[in-house]
Amino acid sequence: MTFDQWTRQVLDRVESALDHYLPAADVQPAPLHDAMRYAVLGGGKRVRPLLCHAAGELTNAAPEALDAAACALEMIHVYSLVHDDMPCMDDDDMRRGKPTVHVKYDEPTALLVGDALQSQAFVTLTSHILDAQHQASLVRELALASGSIGMAGGQAIDLASVGHALTREQLETMHRLKTGALLRAAVRMGALAGETPSADTLASLDKYAAAVGLAFQVVDDILDVTADSATLGKTAGKDAKDGKPTYVSIIGLDASRVLAQQLRADAHAALEPFGARAQRLAELADLVVNRVS
Amino acid sequence: MTFDQWTRQVLDRVESALDHYLPAADVQPAPLHDAMRYAVLGGGKRVRPLLCHAAGELTNAAPEALDAAACALEMIHVYSLVHDDMPCMDDDDMRRGKPTVHVKYDEPTALLVGDALQSQAFVTLTSHILDAQHQASLVRELALASGSIGMAGGQAIDLASVGHALTREQLETMHRLKTGALLRAAVRMGALAGETPSADTLASLDKYAAAVGLAFQVVDDILDVTADSATLGKTAGKDAKDGKPTYVSIIGLDASRVLAQQLRADAHAALEPFGARAQRLAELADLVVNRVS
Repeated sequence: MTFDQWTRQVLDRVESALDHYLPAADVQPAPLHDAMRYAVLGGGKRVRPLLCHAAGELTNAAPEALDAAACALEMIHVYSLVHDDMPCMDDDDMRRGKPTVHVKYDEPTALLVGDALQSQAFVTLTSHILDAQHQASLVRELALASGSIGMAGGQAIDLASVGHALTREQLETMHRLKTGALLRAAVRMGALAGETPSADTLASLDKYAAAVGLAFQVVDDILDVTADSATLGKTAGKDAKDGKPTYVSIIGLDASRVLAQQLRADAHAALEPFGARAQRLAELADLVVNRVS
Repeated sequence: MTFDQWTRQVLDRVESALDHYLPAADVQPAPLHDAMRYAVLGGGKRVRPLLCHAAGELTNAAPEALDAAACALEMIHVYSLVHDDMPCMDDDDMRRGKPTVHVKYDEPTALLVGDALQSQAFVTLTSHILDAQHQASLVRELALASGSIGMAGGQAIDLASVGHALTREQLETMHRLKTGALLRAAVRMGALAGETPSADTLASLDKYAAAVGLAFQVVDDILDVTADSATLGKTAGKDAKDGKPTYVSIIGLDASRVLAQQLRADAHAALEPFGARAQRLAELADLVVNRVS
């Protein structure tokens, strides 16, 4: 199977699984469920689901178990986008090429959509497709990655940093939490969804995820200044306009490109112990660095 | 032990446990953790923790297991208050006798405090104090009660109802989700934290929780028009001012008082199969109906 075929196959099954794990649009309260489905379905690069499925190949995880983990990860990611786009946060009106939830519906709905998607992620992880041991370990992984010492904590640091000069180290700490924690969880949860991974396996995956997570952010910062809004599906040039510190603003565009390639090499190096079984993870590192949107 | 002594003992241990299960104020990002602790610690009636501990007596649950469940319930409850108080929702500036989170800090912080408290609830439920089986069942119970077919769904219905005439049945549906779902989860989680409860036990507890949950709301509506803000620790008369349908507005004050007492009797009746072991649950039903704030 080529990488493109593999990617398409995973995206298809994740889209079906999201449709399954989200409450149907005719379940009460229908307007809330409609808005949750609008936010999640039919868009996004699904980087976390792809990482989760790729890592699951290392521990022979069942595809159905990986679907549940992938959906939970995507629900958390989307909830964070919905809240992040709200007027009191980044105040963005375009996401994944369509109006943001608070624009399409209203602010209270956006708040509740985000809140309910977070709950739904944990409902999804405790579905009967997983045994209790797997449910418990995946819930803990996701909750820690989402919360105050993970994604939400990173957003708090991000907000506090607007208009301030950050060192490269401070910028890295912020991103390690804001986007890195959930990307790391995606990789770890994929491995944890199968046979119990060894401590060495998890340590190698952590190294891989750290490199990919940072690369993802560096490329985001590059695209913010080099791509247009139509390609990105969100407002381009927004970080610079908002006075947010980025890799490009701190180390420059050329050095950012060099850094992205270096991180790609780091990611590949971390996968060496796994040999050919890590092929999809290696290809995903390439995808993250070479993407154009 | 008198009911007062029992209550004080539970409240003391829950307050200690909350202090333990919330990240310390000096853990990074410190400003977010400080705000989370401000929102949760040192206030509130702790009705859900009390119900959880009381129900745990039916299945010989370990007090430490009940503490974890009680803290998770309280974190979810507080997150909902913090988000509910935000300007785009109820826009309230006083809660539990002190400034709301968005007033004391700012709106983005209130949003992130709520988000992170929800994650922290699931971190708490997956602490090693519980085995995997208990972790999994408690997480599912809490996630379902918090999400779109529970608390968040009830808030969506509540928002959509402002300025509309509701029937008593519609009002009941809204409250069954908005506050009832989490109160029911408090009772069920207490029982589930111990030896596996029978289906009959859970059915009786559901009946009890339905009556107590509704009674709680009826009394809330009564207090909104009869108590003052200082006693309530939040803005009195707000529902009437906001044009929100309440029991008092639909059936009147006297009929609401009769209804509250009827629901108290229903709650007691549901506990009959348990005999003396349900003493604390019975006393809590009395507390909910007879409270003055």
